[in-house]
Amino acid sequence: MKKAVILLSGGLDSSTVLAYARSQGFACYCLSLDYGQRSHSELLAAERVAKALGAKMHRVLKLDIGQLGGSALTDTAIDVPVDGVQPGVPVTYVPARNTLMLSFALAWAEVLGAQDIFVGVNAVDYSGYPDCRPEFIRAFEVLANLATKAAVSGARLTVHAPLMEMSKAQIIDMGMRLGVDYGLTVSCYQADSAGNACGVCDSCRLRKEGFFAAGIPDPTRYFNKIS
Amino acid sequence: MKKAVILLSGGLDSSTVLAYARSQGFACYCLSLDYGQRSHSELLAAERVAKALGAKMHRVLKLDIGQLGGSALTDTAIDVPVDGVQPGVPVTYVPARNTLMLSFALAWAEVLGAQDIFVGVNAVDYSGYPDCRPEFIRAFEVLANLATKAAVSGARLTVHAPLMEMSKAQIIDMGMRLGVDYGLTVSCYQADSAGNACGVCDSCRLRKEGFFAAGIPDPTRYFNKIS
Repeated sequence: MKKAVILLSGGLDSSTVLAYARSQGFACYCLSLDYGQRSHSELLAAERVAKALGAKMHRVLKLDIGQLGGSALTDTAIDVPVDGVQPGVPVTYVPARNTLMLSFALAWAEVLGAQDIFVGVNAVDYSGYPDCRPEFIRAFEVLANLATKAAVSGARLTVHAPLMEMSKAQIIDMGMRLGVDYGLTVSCYQADSAGNACGVCDSCRLRKEGFFAAGIPDPTRYFNKIS
Repeated sequence: MKKAVILLSGGLDSSTVLAYARSQGFACYCLSLDYGQRSHSELLAAERVAKALGAKMHRVLKLDIGQLGGSALTDTAIDVPVDGVQPGVPVTYVPARNTLMLSFALAWAEVLGAQDIFVGVNAVDYSGYPDCRPEFIRAFEVLANLATKAAVSGARLTVHAPLMEMSKAQIIDMGMRLGVDYGLTVSCYQADSAGNACGVCDSCRLRKEGFFAAGIPDPTRYFNKIS
């Protein structure tokens, strides 16, 4: 079985990607980054999901960027917006997050001898995030193929972003067919410690609309009853 | 004054780069990564050097890759080679290190609003490291210019690698003219806690030869008298 490194946040998208990579026959090494996100329950969700979907290994590495500030997800002085998705780059954007996460995935891939990295970025719902665009993923792949020992000896590394052009409803639909239990996942930017979601942050809104559009009952537990 | 992020390990090369960036009129924000390197005295050296060369700020972030293994610099089960520089990628190579370090620099640059990153990579002495090649640096620059909020609004980020084509002797010569006190720097892969160098690892050998070729007395303190 070919090894692959899967970036797994514990949210809806990355959990679907893990199921997809498994369906493609990869032995999955899941990597979660603890970047001081408000919602620690995301990392617990990642652990549950990795287990449920038969990952070979799950590792959590610390990503020490909280002290740099600059994002509502790592800086408690900045509020998470709850008034609906706005145009432009949102304050929940974490500086260079996907660059950093893919770099960690690359480091592990190199140690494992894996030539495949899977990441759940999506350009449809998250058009505001610069590092979710197809051209960004392609540029990282070019970099990866210059950066490593394996690259020097001619091996080719592929960065898979299978959700890139899919709507949230299509992602959920694919995940359901692949056996993902979305009740285990946490997408909320400010979930409580039990993994209950707020229902009003951008991530909750997009997720909720996705289940609605897919015609599938939303298994998310919300703590915010007004939502 | 324009802000720049300088990757500063505390070694000879990156200290010279800091002096160079200062001479170009940049306000220097120095970033050191604590990746569990054997030689913690490198980080202390970075602190001394940042202060001596008038850096605006010096930050140390943890780079949590030690548990991935795969390098003599982070994995104590692998010995640091002391028998001279060999062809090929050395075991002291840290998987994806420069990709990771540049990604952290990019994150900080984004928060600071800096459009310049300086890194002390060098293709002459370190031809064995894939992520010290000019094409790698260029690929990272392309990536950086797709990855950030600033990139979306048209700002252009530059990755400066001023030492890329210089010999160790040329680097030392430039640094001396820029006022670098190399007695403060630590390059050794296995320096002791006081910053004394072994004299026999690849990094020590290249440094020692550099001082010799530059015709400048080597200010390095060695603990290994056989060297």
